[in-house]
Amino acid sequence: MTVGPVEIGQRSETVRRANLGAIVRELHAHGALSRSELVARTGLTRSAIRSLVGELVHAGLAAEGPATRLGTPGRPSPVVQLVAGSAVVVALDIAVDSLAAAIVGLGGRTLARVRIERSREHSSVDEIAADLTGLARTVLGRRPAAEPVVGIGVAVVGVVRRSDGVVSMAPNLGWRDIPLGERLARALDLSVPISVANEADLGTLAELRRGAAVGADDLVYISGEVGVGGGVIVGGRPLTGIAGYAGEVGHMPVNPEGAPCRCGSVGCWETEVGEDALLVRAGLMPGGGRAAVDTVLREAAAGSATAQAALDHVGTWLGFGLASLVNLLNPQLIVLGGRFGRMYPFVTRALHAELDRRTLPAARSLVTVIPTSLGVDAPLLGAAELALEPLLADPAQWVRPRDTLPELKSA
Amino acid sequence: MTVGPVEIGQRSETVRRANLGAIVRELHAHGALSRSELVARTGLTRSAIRSLVGELVHAGLAAEGPATRLGTPGRPSPVVQLVAGSAVVVALDIAVDSLAAAIVGLGGRTLARVRIERSREHSSVDEIAADLTGLARTVLGRRPAAEPVVGIGVAVVGVVRRSDGVVSMAPNLGWRDIPLGERLARALDLSVPISVANEADLGTLAELRRGAAVGADDLVYISGEVGVGGGVIVGGRPLTGIAGYAGEVGHMPVNPEGAPCRCGSVGCWETEVGEDALLVRAGLMPGGGRAAVDTVLREAAAGSATAQAALDHVGTWLGFGLASLVNLLNPQLIVLGGRFGRMYPFVTRALHAELDRRTLPAARSLVTVIPTSLGVDAPLLGAAELALEPLLADPAQWVRPRDTLPELKSA
Repeated sequence: MTVGPVEIGQRSETVRRANLGAIVRELHAHGALSRSELVARTGLTRSAIRSLVGELVHAGLAAEGPATRLGTPGRPSPVVQLVAGSAVVVALDIAVDSLAAAIVGLGGRTLARVRIERSREHSSVDEIAADLTGLARTVLGRRPAAEPVVGIGVAVVGVVRRSDGVVSMAPNLGWRDIPLGERLARALDLSVPISVANEADLGTLAELRRGAAVGADDLVYISGEVGVGGGVIVGGRPLTGIAGYAGEVGHMPVNPEGAPCRCGSVGCWETEVGEDALLVRAGLMPGGGRAAVDTVLREAAAGSATAQAALDHVGTWLGFGLASLVNLLNPQLIVLGGRFGRMYPFVTRALHAELDRRTLPAARSLVTVIPTSLGVDAPLLGAAELALEPLLADPAQWVRPRDTLPELKSA
Repeated sequence: MTVGPVEIGQRSETVRRANLGAIVRELHAHGALSRSELVARTGLTRSAIRSLVGELVHAGLAAEGPATRLGTPGRPSPVVQLVAGSAVVVALDIAVDSLAAAIVGLGGRTLARVRIERSREHSSVDEIAADLTGLARTVLGRRPAAEPVVGIGVAVVGVVRRSDGVVSMAPNLGWRDIPLGERLARALDLSVPISVANEADLGTLAELRRGAAVGADDLVYISGEVGVGGGVIVGGRPLTGIAGYAGEVGHMPVNPEGAPCRCGSVGCWETEVGEDALLVRAGLMPGGGRAAVDTVLREAAAGSATAQAALDHVGTWLGFGLASLVNLLNPQLIVLGGRFGRMYPFVTRALHAELDRRTLPAARSLVTVIPTSLGVDAPLLGAAELALEPLLADPAQWVRPRDTLPELKSA
């Protein structure tokens, strides 16, 4: 048995709101569902589903298709799905090598998307905000109709305080204590809430909702281009820690005799599995970036022993750090994203050998390691999910005529 | 903001049960509360509280005292508390150096308790079960009245599969894949459910409910006599992992050049901070056990440089491993239990220096390190909390006349 959560008592009048939320979240996660499936998934009665779906349809958030027979006895059950255009969010991604923006609708459909390369030079928050504002205007202009924007989600390659979107540290950007959320809100000038989170945390959320980890309750996601980012799902919920700083796996100390890290410590995991650790061991100059990593991968594919030895080094150290996470977290799934997803075929042997050596058998036997299925867009899609959270948590506040939804002030 | 949980829809008829549970859990966690405080803590209406408390009183689970004025305006509010003798559990603890049993009542009051020393020799599950059965009979005989037993909770120094109480590995006992829950259930012959969990996980639960960590949402607890056990609370909930194996912090690899570990790996955390690592560095023979550790602590207190140097070594490595946990989990509190609680005054300087060096500033600034307040009994009290969980999760099933509660078959 597991030790259960401590729930709080509920007033009867809050139940309707909770139930609307349960229905919208099921439809958001699973796409079109029949009323019968909604009954089964939510535990609500048939008449409650009919009434609540009616409210969602009336508000324009959901649509009902013709009744279909699903191979089960009884009357055919109408199929319900969310209307992607009924509420959309702006998703933004500040990655190491690129900036991106997307418009994503309720239900998770991407309606418009754009990504541009960026140099790895440090950038001021004002420069980034100006670039992202341009990208946001582009995708807002490309949306099929004037769908109402209900939120903005931002993924950033840095340590983020969730409460106010302050980036505490982002070595790739040269930032310390930057109020990114506030600056972006001002630059974008949309009268909707903005939420900022670490890109690996959001990649994790995207894998859980839309990617390789759908249905996983206990999950570790690692990614990164220069260093190592991580996100963790525990018991079906994102691990955030007390302030949102959790998941900084790249700075787990793994080698007391290791190299200095950008964070000021020594022997952090990213000093052994980071981009430059690979490049130097493969005989290349540090700082070569993504293109140089791709060169190493091509050489390994062509049979280069030097390239494969460098990848074995990284694979072994990946296994070393993941062993800590497996023994600590007992996850069912490890998803390799970012650079590690691309490296997957070349590091998997060394990684598994090290996991075999360093994990407890009970936890080892239950964990699977897979590459990402969302690639570079995982954090961007996670940013959209983050921005949709308030609507998903309490859709009742949106269940009203469409023309009273918050409107864009500009763009 | 945090990404919220996915809740499931609720039928109106389940709300009463949920609300009874919310009231019982508040009273269990906080002791006597006025009806007004219950209104504030649960969010339920005054009339719902009056009616539900009435049910609990009628069933004998709670009692109402005279109304008291609490310095707030309005009518005095009757004080409600749980009746400890209305339902009790048997708590058992299989520790490295001792065995213990207790009778703990609803509300967390210990009604009887006994602990005996055990040698560190390996013991068969039948020997342990026989000893624990004797201890259980002792405490059952000492309970004030024939309080009805509703469950058995067991803490064991090993890796436990929660679903069925199988001990996957317990190096201190020499066990592998031992069906401890089943064996103990047979030996005790009480017709009530039995739950088994790792002792550090249960020590964590006890610290959270009754000890130094009341109110902490994100918590790391480490303990151990020979090695290192750990328990983690994430967002207010125990971290169990997919099968209950989570929290095996003692086997996080920390030193690639380190010593062989009992688990078969090399350089696990417990090879640097375990009991023998301390003893050998202090110039004592390994295997000296708790008495030898106490000798080192006495020598350090008396000013021995050798003893303090050994403790500094352990303190530094404690900080090294805890830095991983701080960067990964962003906890607000680290509680040092077991041997680490006793060592606390002698390791705290080195431990904090290493944390300063190896943690990210944002996470470092939010975490406090404290010693246990429950001492050796933390896992035993946690076992009682575990056994009370089904009652706390759904007290409605117990809300019926007392004489129909499950009765002891024997003892």
